[in-house]
Amino acid sequence: MTAHVTTGVWCPTLTPLDNALDPDLRLLSAHLCWLVDQGCHGIVLFGTTGEANSFTVDERRRVLEGVLAAGFSPDRLIVGTGCCSAGDTASLTKHAIASGCPRVLVLPPFYYKGVSEQGTIDAYSREIEATADDRLRFYFYRIPQLSGVDITAAVVDALIERFGPVISGLKDSSGDRESIEALCNRFGSRLDVLVGTERFLKRALECGAVGCISATANVHAPIIRALFDDPTEAAQERATLARDAYESAPVIPALKAATARRTNDDGWLHVRPPLVAVQTLGG
Amino acid sequence: MTAHVTTGVWCPTLTPLDNALDPDLRLLSAHLCWLVDQGCHGIVLFGTTGEANSFTVDERRRVLEGVLAAGFSPDRLIVGTGCCSAGDTASLTKHAIASGCPRVLVLPPFYYKGVSEQGTIDAYSREIEATADDRLRFYFYRIPQLSGVDITAAVVDALIERFGPVISGLKDSSGDRESIEALCNRFGSRLDVLVGTERFLKRALECGAVGCISATANVHAPIIRALFDDPTEAAQERATLARDAYESAPVIPALKAATARRTNDDGWLHVRPPLVAVQTLGG
Repeated sequence: MTAHVTTGVWCPTLTPLDNALDPDLRLLSAHLCWLVDQGCHGIVLFGTTGEANSFTVDERRRVLEGVLAAGFSPDRLIVGTGCCSAGDTASLTKHAIASGCPRVLVLPPFYYKGVSEQGTIDAYSREIEATADDRLRFYFYRIPQLSGVDITAAVVDALIERFGPVISGLKDSSGDRESIEALCNRFGSRLDVLVGTERFLKRALECGAVGCISATANVHAPIIRALFDDPTEAAQERATLARDAYESAPVIPALKAATARRTNDDGWLHVRPPLVAVQTLGG
Repeated sequence: MTAHVTTGVWCPTLTPLDNALDPDLRLLSAHLCWLVDQGCHGIVLFGTTGEANSFTVDERRRVLEGVLAAGFSPDRLIVGTGCCSAGDTASLTKHAIASGCPRVLVLPPFYYKGVSEQGTIDAYSREIEATADDRLRFYFYRIPQLSGVDITAAVVDALIERFGPVISGLKDSSGDRESIEALCNRFGSRLDVLVGTERFLKRALECGAVGCISATANVHAPIIRALFDDPTEAAQERATLARDAYESAPVIPALKAATARRTNDDGWLHVRPPLVAVQTLGG
């Protein structure tokens, strides 16, 4: 049994862009403050929702530095650092730790498919060894429908065995209720297990999860926070209904469009290709 | 009708690694010379077989510089430059052109799945605009089973329409005979269409392809060259049979192991995770 470091409702923030599709740090900082006001316990910078892989290593470093320079607390940040190359992952991870953000959320290398468990273990091991810092707090990022690579219990076990306390948590965005519950049951007392959607939050909390990291926290964090604080059946139903509104559309452009409407700022509509923006503010 | 720039048998070279899993430029240069001696018309540096996405942008630049410094002709090179972020792709593409290698083979951004044709067009357009160099010779890299993103005729048409002569070719590694033949028929007179396997070479040549870029050219280029020079049914059968030997195993470790046996050099066994090396030289 380990004391949990990360609990509650975390938002994988959208990354607002200017007309040149460069990160808009002014809009981003305002959004992060708003999210905390809305009840988020913290923010994941550069998850899938933040279009992480559409940015270069240098761009990702500069955004983290900008957010911290604007006064946002590193204690409220987890930084996505997983790239295809171990060199890029280690570089971003070292930078995050040096910036006061030891919690990193790490995709497996996501180009090759049909990767073996041993290959995934080797890849993560190489990155952690290259980081070479005991302050590291490593969170697995399980999202096989995009990465093409699963994070199995055997992978998690092997890395706990090898690296001990730096292995801190797991974000499960697989959307597969059965395997999520199995991972919560197995690792909930040892790791911070966070589910990738509020849709499963009540049940996941019962199985050992400590919270969620959900894209739709960008638009309706209070509903998710209410569910986390008091996980009743009614709160779950309300959260699931709110989530449903985003299931049919491409979620990142839709969340940016909703934010553009809320803030009355068209700048929020911009996405980086290969995503395609929702073209108008509309209704 | 355009004069074809790239024809024949091209080898997407393996990238040999040293004990620290850094590129071994000595082994690589020797391998490239051997491949040309074996009948390859040219080399693709940093395709899928070359573990391209397991290297950082800086590593990829240094390998190209090392190959050229060792005296290999840039006229015999196509450079893989497609990354998830437009900034990385443009950076590698500019570097290749400045190094005398205007032919680049470009994956679409490969993290997001279910990407629209418009998103793929937008992503490629942004990269070509950022490169901003008329010397560019751009080759699409179609390998949806790994990238998760298809290159359709509509995508190719849109980019030809927009960028004209810089759009030079297409490597089709989809393994899907029907769509390969359709693309050969449609674009064979306008683009250099190269198939990703000798398995389809005879038929593809009949449909308008100008050659192939095949991983197994790393081990049996003469068989593929014989098929290209005289595409008889017997030559196709011989090439298909040779290819079959590599269809059941993870192909990159198997090709490296075969090269280790041929050169009697264990160094060739190294792969970067998430690939897993074949552990012994064996038989």
